Amino acid sequence: MAETSRPDGPAVLAQNQYGKAENRVVRITRDGATHHIKDLNVSVTLSGDMDDVHYSGSNAHVLPTDTTKNTVYAFAKQHGIESAEQFGIHLARHFVSSQEAIRTARIRIEEYDWERIALPGAAEGGHSFVRKGQEVRLTQVFHDGASWQVVSGLKDMVVLNSTDSEFWGYAKDEYTTLPEAHDRVLATEVTARWRYGWSGEGDTPDWDASYAETRRHLLEAFAGTYSYSLQQTLYEMGARVVGERDEIDEIRLSLPNKHHFLADLTPFGLTNDNEVYLAADRPYGLIEATVLREGREAAIPVDLTNL
Amino acid sequence: MAETSRPDGPAVLAQNQYGKAENRVVRITRDGATHHIKDLNVSVTLSGDMDDVHYSGSNAHVLPTDTTKNTVYAFAKQHGIESAEQFGIHLARHFVSSQEAIRTARIRIEEYDWERIALPGAAEGGHSFVRKGQEVRLTQVFHDGASWQVVSGLKDMVVLNSTDSEFWGYAKDEYTTLPEAHDRVLATEVTARWRYGWSGEGDTPDWDASYAETRRHLLEAFAGTYSYSLQQTLYEMGARVVGERDEIDEIRLSLPNKHHFLADLTPFGLTNDNEVYLAADRPYGLIEATVLREGREAAIPVDLTNL
Amino acid sequence: MAETSRPDGPAVLAQNQYGKAENRVVRITRDGATHHIKDLNVSVTLSGDMDDVHYSGSNAHVLPTDTTKNTVYAFAKQHGIESAEQFGIHLARHFVSSQEAIRTARIRIEEYDWERIALPGAAEGGHSFVRKGQEVRLTQVFHDGASWQVVSGLKDMVVLNSTDSEFWGYAKDEYTTLPEAHDRVLATEVTARWRYGWSGEGDTPDWDASYAETRRHLLEAFAGTYSYSLQQTLYEMGARVVGERDEIDEIRLSLPNKHHFLADLTPFGLTNDNEVYLAADRPYGLIEATVLREGREAAIPVDLTNL
Amino acid sequence: MAETSRPDGPAVLAQNQYGKAENRVVRITRDGATHHIKDLNVSVTLSGDMDDVHYSGSNAHVLPTDTTKNTVYAFAKQHGIESAEQFGIHLARHFVSSQEAIRTARIRIEEYDWERIALPGAAEGGHSFVRKGQEVRLTQVFHDGASWQVVSGLKDMVVLNSTDSEFWGYAKDEYTTLPEAHDRVLATEVTARWRYGWSGEGDTPDWDASYAETRRHLLEAFAGTYSYSLQQTLYEMGARVVGERDEIDEIRLSLPNKHHFLADLTPFGLTNDNEVYLAADRPYGLIEATVLREGREAAIPVDLTNL
Repeated sequence: MAETSRPDGPAVLAQNQYGKAENRVVRITRDGATHHIKDLNVSVTLSGDMDDVHYSGSNAHVLPTDTTKNTVYAFAKQHGIESAEQFGIHLARHFVSSQEAIRTARIRIEEYDWERIALPGAAEGGHSFVRKGQEVRLTQVFHDGASWQVVSGLKDMVVLNSTDSEFWGYAKDEYTTLPEAHDRVLATEVTARWRYGWSGEGDTPDWDASYAETRRHLLEAFAGTYSYSLQQTLYEMGARVVGERDEIDEIRLSLPNKHHFLADLTPFGLTNDNEVYLAADRPYGLIEATVLREGREAAIPVDLTNL
Repeated sequence: MAETSRPDGPAVLAQNQYGKAENRVVRITRDGATHHIKDLNVSVTLSGDMDDVHYSGSNAHVLPTDTTKNTVYAFAKQHGIESAEQFGIHLARHFVSSQEAIRTARIRIEEYDWERIALPGAAEGGHSFVRKGQEVRLTQVFHDGASWQVVSGLKDMVVLNSTDSEFWGYAKDEYTTLPEAHDRVLATEVTARWRYGWSGEGDTPDWDASYAETRRHLLEAFAGTYSYSLQQTLYEMGARVVGERDEIDEIRLSLPNKHHFLADLTPFGLTNDNEVYLAADRPYGLIEATVLREGREAAIPVDLTNL
Repeated sequence: MAETSRPDGPAVLAQNQYGKAENRVVRITRDGATHHIKDLNVSVTLSGDMDDVHYSGSNAHVLPTDTTKNTVYAFAKQHGIESAEQFGIHLARHFVSSQEAIRTARIRIEEYDWERIALPGAAEGGHSFVRKGQEVRLTQVFHDGASWQVVSGLKDMVVLNSTDSEFWGYAKDEYTTLPEAHDRVLATEVTARWRYGWSGEGDTPDWDASYAETRRHLLEAFAGTYSYSLQQTLYEMGARVVGERDEIDEIRLSLPNKHHFLADLTPFGLTNDNEVYLAADRPYGLIEATVLREGREAAIPVDLTNL
Repeated sequence: MAETSRPDGPAVLAQNQYGKAENRVVRITRDGATHHIKDLNVSVTLSGDMDDVHYSGSNAHVLPTDTTKNTVYAFAKQHGIESAEQFGIHLARHFVSSQEAIRTARIRIEEYDWERIALPGAAEGGHSFVRKGQEVRLTQVFHDGASWQVVSGLKDMVVLNSTDSEFWGYAKDEYTTLPEAHDRVLATEVTARWRYGWSGEGDTPDWDASYAETRRHLLEAFAGTYSYSLQQTLYEMGARVVGERDEIDEIRLSLPNKHHFLADLTPFGLTNDNEVYLAADRPYGLIEATVLREGREAAIPVDLTNL
């Protein structure tokens, strides 16, 4: 097929990508009477030699998004779902290696965790589950045919310290009215994205163990830090992960400061000794930063933590 | 103040109510280094002698919604928050007994549960929490100055059985195309509302124990029922609660059938032996029913479970 | 088939209903080059002789929810969609009249409105639309084989008066701190449900004209009322509809008071002459009432406006 | 104050930013009896010399996020809100020029549009509004003390063509099952971000006129394109803007393919001649691309359109 020329005019196509988003795939594995469940939301994004379809509507290079959806479900059968990361690697490799026009693939996955429902007197295992409903596990696998980038993470993990948090000694200008705080509630909803050093050489990390340990370090660093600012807590969380997990080169955290204001009870003749708080919705402070392993280059986009 | 007459015209004021909705109150209790947290969303609704304000805008009988908000925070200090139900009882009694124009009060509360973050080497307790993020606990306390009605419940509890569910033998008409299913996934998001028999006489139930046990029975009945229809599972869940919890007279369940469709892999030469499912969003089956203790009268409104 | 007996124990089945919720059906009608679009979200709820399926799992009386979904799409072809109300009537009549076990049907419909995209130089009409995105139109049609009840309405219509609103002269208690307001912003998000007098006898109202006029009256009554309280404004809105639209017997309004607080600029040496406001999220006042045509009986459930 | 050194360990602070997000500010301007309303959601993000606060919790360089909130409300009084872009420029300049430690400011604004409620017999103008509720207008202003970047846009604009859309001739592999389509519904929810060429030299564009015209071109290009793929439609939309609006150098579009599947009515003996569609939620195709003015460099981040 002949190359389509670009239409007249000043407009040029630049970065472009396409795919099928939010394929909700659930994989059940039966091990006798003990069933296992993996519950994913998979978004496929492809890019490559796509000038024609944009300039003229010729679809000769376009593998339909419907096909990418079918592939997700077929691969869940053919390869199983060992982990979100491993499943993403299977998918990304397939699209880039099987379609000449496709040069890169990015697979984004959300994973929802489930707990078993225990029945009294029953053996462990079984086939009944209740969704854990806490944080959502995330991964993004990117492949360009040569190297790999895996950025995993989590979102929606809400944490709170009811003491050991202060905020004072800050800069002031003519619009500053905030009183200093020497014992406040510190609460945030953690969104984290960490990038693995693995880029295709050598063994992959143990994705599930790495997730569990990174999550634990984030929680423990949040809980264990006596905080003078949310920025300091953020850094401690990131530094803990980089310090403890050699397989991770970089982590980005987005921490909304979920303000808990002390209720003013003085009009009612009551003292509020750090007991009663209003949990506010908007506005909220928003603290975001990347913590990097020394000597590595940052690669997580600034806007990724907003997703 | 003279009674305002109703304006001319055919329009008459009927049922009316007002209040402040969604007061987000967090109560921290310090027991040495061990802190406790209660995290509520409280909505106050009052009604009474309110013709004037509707007909003429005279506010003489209207306790401001801002005052009801203040009361929520002041009571969190004055009475503490032993349980959502007990807190609602304090509030409802106050409004009805302290304002002559207020005849009834309805307090609706959502409660969000938190887990402790354990630090290695630390004693139990501490001041750090991660939101559990599973179901939301609910209560509604109604008081008219004489008697009480407490309807508690939960929402957002997602459960799934990966086998022991069938659906066949159903009625058919000219629009029926559904194939019979002899081994399907059964998943739902439980919304439940149960009404306590307590109406003001005698001791109140142990609200927290009752909640924990009712939740457990719902989960166990869901998990333990070999199901021929979601209606049957719903009845088993409700009957279990009524059978096991004497303090509960009635329960209403709203169970969306969260369809998990077997992915059709035959075009790819693959068999799908109950392994790979598409989790669908809309439309969904919606099964709702009340299960009642024999001899009692149903009182939970049909539309309450939609809230 | 023999009647199933109720299982042993104290639990009795009470009100129950089932169906397929949120069937998203879009109907395109081509009138030459001019296309028309109807965009609905249809929820079917049936009830009747359903003891067996709850007590034993026997589905002999259960028309599958999948069938009710199919019926929605088939009827969109067979009957077209003249209006949401008329479409709901077709569906409700069908289920009750065609299935012996089905005694009542309730059809709830949301409708999304679209505007045409005008192309320069093109004739009016065409096939391109942009979603209006303002209020959502609602209806609920209930049929028990004999009579009909139609409750229509709207939600998500946000309105604001930037003056002509006061609030003072209210009741005060020891928790009252609110200063009186003599010129405030009054904003709310209107949810309205109105019940038609038509119950099966005589011609149906002109549903579309009735909707357009009722919506207009609600807006004009909100805008034209000098308000001393949101309750007064609510009554004026309801009374206007009952007074002007003979086909409507009752209307229920749920009006959250979307607080716009004057920003306190005094610390910065600035006066705020009703110019700069903080739009707050939670908590919010919530004012709800039914306005009824004299001599009729109220029938809209109190909790319906929360849906 | 002495510089804090970085704590021991491999972790280094990289990109970081902070501020107050989602300040909901409403500005009323009274022109006699005619009021005007601007309704914004403003998020302030600052960055600069912030190593200390992350490494040690020293807040000496940290202007509190509460102060940035106060500034938003004070500036709404002091400068008014001529347009979202102009308001963002005032804010960004202030933070960078007034605080030595602050090197860059990024102001993100959402704007909600309102329509006047017309009263019969009243003069035009007035003080009553109904929220338009269609697309949300967006802008992002970035300033580093020297140059400026303004990226405006919109989101939530849902459009649909009921004909003049085909999809065929695409690549096929072993997972392809999609039938070709020669007359389909094409619907999408437009998210667009366009970058202005203005970087501080010369007059600013007329922001409001530019917004109105860009929005119009997007709608007209969508409506007027006979489409062989959503990619082609996307390019036409972007090229139209770049071709018609000299002040815009680049536009990025994110277009979910909101699938409308033809309902299969053949089991009921009915033909579906492009009349009845199922509007599906997930999964959806997702087509994203940047269209650039020839000779310029792309600068809109790939992930920005997801926000």
